[in-house]
Amino acid sequence: MAPPILTPQSEDFPRWYQEVVAKAELADNGPVRGTMVIRPWGFAIWEHLRDALDRRIKDAGVENAYFPMLIPESFLRREAEHVEGFSPELAVVTHGGGKELEEPLVVRPTSETIINHFFAKWISSHRDLPLKVNNWSNIVRWELRPRLFLRTTEFLWQEGHTAHASAEEAHEFALHILDEVYAGVMRDELAVPVYTGLKTDREKFAGADRTWTCEGIMRDGKALQMGTSHELGQNFSRAFGTRYTDRDGELREPFQTSWGATTRLLGAMIMVHGDDQGLRLPPRVAPTQVVVVVVKDDGMVIPEAHRIASALEARGVRVRVDDQVDVSFGRRVTDWELKGAPLRVEIGPRDVAAGQAAVVSRTRGQKRMLPADGVARWAVEALEADQAALLEEATRLRDDGTTAVDDVEGAIEHGGAVRIPWSAVGDEGEQRLAAAGLSVRCRLRESDDAIVAKAY
Amino acid sequence: MAPPILTPQSEDFPRWYQEVVAKAELADNGPVRGTMVIRPWGFAIWEHLRDALDRRIKDAGVENAYFPMLIPESFLRREAEHVEGFSPELAVVTHGGGKELEEPLVVRPTSETIINHFFAKWISSHRDLPLKVNNWSNIVRWELRPRLFLRTTEFLWQEGHTAHASAEEAHEFALHILDEVYAGVMRDELAVPVYTGLKTDREKFAGADRTWTCEGIMRDGKALQMGTSHELGQNFSRAFGTRYTDRDGELREPFQTSWGATTRLLGAMIMVHGDDQGLRLPPRVAPTQVVVVVVKDDGMVIPEAHRIASALEARGVRVRVDDQVDVSFGRRVTDWELKGAPLRVEIGPRDVAAGQAAVVSRTRGQKRMLPADGVARWAVEALEADQAALLEEATRLRDDGTTAVDDVEGAIEHGGAVRIPWSAVGDEGEQRLAAAGLSVRCRLRESDDAIVAKAY
Repeated sequence: MAPPILTPQSEDFPRWYQEVVAKAELADNGPVRGTMVIRPWGFAIWEHLRDALDRRIKDAGVENAYFPMLIPESFLRREAEHVEGFSPELAVVTHGGGKELEEPLVVRPTSETIINHFFAKWISSHRDLPLKVNNWSNIVRWELRPRLFLRTTEFLWQEGHTAHASAEEAHEFALHILDEVYAGVMRDELAVPVYTGLKTDREKFAGADRTWTCEGIMRDGKALQMGTSHELGQNFSRAFGTRYTDRDGELREPFQTSWGATTRLLGAMIMVHGDDQGLRLPPRVAPTQVVVVVVKDDGMVIPEAHRIASALEARGVRVRVDDQVDVSFGRRVTDWELKGAPLRVEIGPRDVAAGQAAVVSRTRGQKRMLPADGVARWAVEALEADQAALLEEATRLRDDGTTAVDDVEGAIEHGGAVRIPWSAVGDEGEQRLAAAGLSVRCRLRESDDAIVAKAY
Repeated sequence: MAPPILTPQSEDFPRWYQEVVAKAELADNGPVRGTMVIRPWGFAIWEHLRDALDRRIKDAGVENAYFPMLIPESFLRREAEHVEGFSPELAVVTHGGGKELEEPLVVRPTSETIINHFFAKWISSHRDLPLKVNNWSNIVRWELRPRLFLRTTEFLWQEGHTAHASAEEAHEFALHILDEVYAGVMRDELAVPVYTGLKTDREKFAGADRTWTCEGIMRDGKALQMGTSHELGQNFSRAFGTRYTDRDGELREPFQTSWGATTRLLGAMIMVHGDDQGLRLPPRVAPTQVVVVVVKDDGMVIPEAHRIASALEARGVRVRVDDQVDVSFGRRVTDWELKGAPLRVEIGPRDVAAGQAAVVSRTRGQKRMLPADGVARWAVEALEADQAALLEEATRLRDDGTTAVDDVEGAIEHGGAVRIPWSAVGDEGEQRLAAAGLSVRCRLRESDDAIVAKAY
């Protein structure tokens, strides 16, 4: 028997992760520690996810804009908690154009400060509210224990920033982003169901009044923070002097939100759906949804493979023909399983003669023969079924992987993801959990429970 | 008579430019000299342009990827011309995570070096060729005389990088990008016709064998370099040790191309189409193609405006209803003209009663009354006509604005854009032109002439 293509998950999950990211050609380490190259297969997944997020962000009435990456160091110092939280992670530009700069510049670790500098210019009347902008960009936070996608010194993300006339409106909007945009895209595109809830004071964003979070449970039982939405209160509008005249002519400071989701989401997709054969990509974000593999060619097979591919394309399916017949069929099948292409169509000379093709789903297996003309119709249905099957399996994984416990001792004894009454934790319990390597991922919205787990 | 909303172009073109960028809310200066905020109206134009470029890049068989922004300083030194060209423009990170770094990092001024570091890993066989990747990203080049969109310390762009087995294939590909991707998008989306040709040795990219360029002629007679495509030969593959085994088992160095287009394209669009009333946006890239302006409301007009807007949306038109009736109608019309929305529909109480609306094109004028139910059909045709009219006008501008001269003296005397036999220029003539503030923009592909002009 051939040796396994990947270290089995049960043997060494972190190693499995590292191997699958490399072998599926998702990403590579950059020459500067903690930086990352996102390779074409990985980037195409990000593009589908990014576009889906972008559509929902725009549907929420938010407009995209671009703010500069270089921020005067003094900007960060204006909000006390903020600078304390981010100082240890900063990359600092001290030289530009061949000269030492008068004031060092930080590479944005997040953009609250520079965006508020402009909000202060743009907002003067209640008519300017609500103001809702979003910025797709790259971020640098110095990372001591980097892992591809999960913790990288540079990562890609979107950060949204809004200003509202009332705390209530800001609250509602922060939750809209959490539920409809973030949790919605995670569920519908990535097939990853998440817990949503409130961060504890210990875990909230530096400068926020409240931080809402989406937490996924990975196949190894650890939790991953997948997106956060912050109620900033008036902290930044005060620090930057953002004020508006209300309908009664009074000067007021707006209430703000900010919210971000990053390339880390690909890490969640990998760790929730991947198996010992490699990735399993949710069809919605798969760069290639169907690969038509030419087993071998006699001059008739490649044209037939393209005919089938055209029929798939005509139905809006993303398809690729693999006609690299100088590479062994078995090797190519292994590679496509590694890369997680949702559906595979296999076709050889005898199949062409018989007007048929073998089809198989990466997620549900079920290899069988179909008439060649039935492949396209099958694929459209199978992609829907795969997307649903992945979500169902991931939901079971999350729910079965979360054990109810009564108290902090129970949580520590269990060691994995647990649900625990918040009243049994509190600040003191949170410290004891931390000492045991566990953290409160969130206080659930729909109950008085909290989710506690080891975390990435 | 009201004072003009903008300094007339004929009076002070640079000032007009600065004012229109600010008043149309396209962009704003960042706090760090030379940096730029792209505001929502400007960014939405960029999104349409970016998406059109991205489609053509993908159609050319190129895959998107992401490479790190932070590059070890030593990488740049590997290609001698390259480091000499870019050193004066670098931003340098010397501190990260609270410590001084062992090796300074440069913020990418372009990514040939880091991409070739990976090409050297990814390319080993002729089967790996051609390799074609593209990276959308932000770039930093320290800018001494910044101007929004035209020269900014940080800008957005795409950079494509390819590796080919032969010089001929690399040459063909560089020209495909120049003609079909760059000049094609400029013509079809931005309605800006360009001269395409070869840069002189003096003007070519630092590290390239040959640089091809797209040059636009602005309304003030100056030229703007709008996109370049470089044949890098084997310069970077040699510097980074990128080699592959050919079909005969020989080790060879691939031939490479790189090519980039930036947010500067928005500057071209502004300076080619804008007039004394403001922007005139080509419909293909306009964030809002039709604005339905409510003149005043009696309870019937706003619903009717939304009904018209829905009919427009159903035909795929990007539409916005302006129902800010607490701002004067004249002020709002002036603002929409400033912002360059291609078509305007005006509707008030009497129009609703008569079942009609006034319609007008920003580009072609021709204000007239239409039955309300005819607005959508009219708009679809008018948008096509506007796009064509802008291209026609810009082509006339370019052609009439380029005078044929026989020699360098004639070019210097003329002072504006000229077409001149390259044989009458040469290296020595190029120096004399430079002393007079003129540069050889390109040697045209289809003739022995060169285009000489003042340049942005």
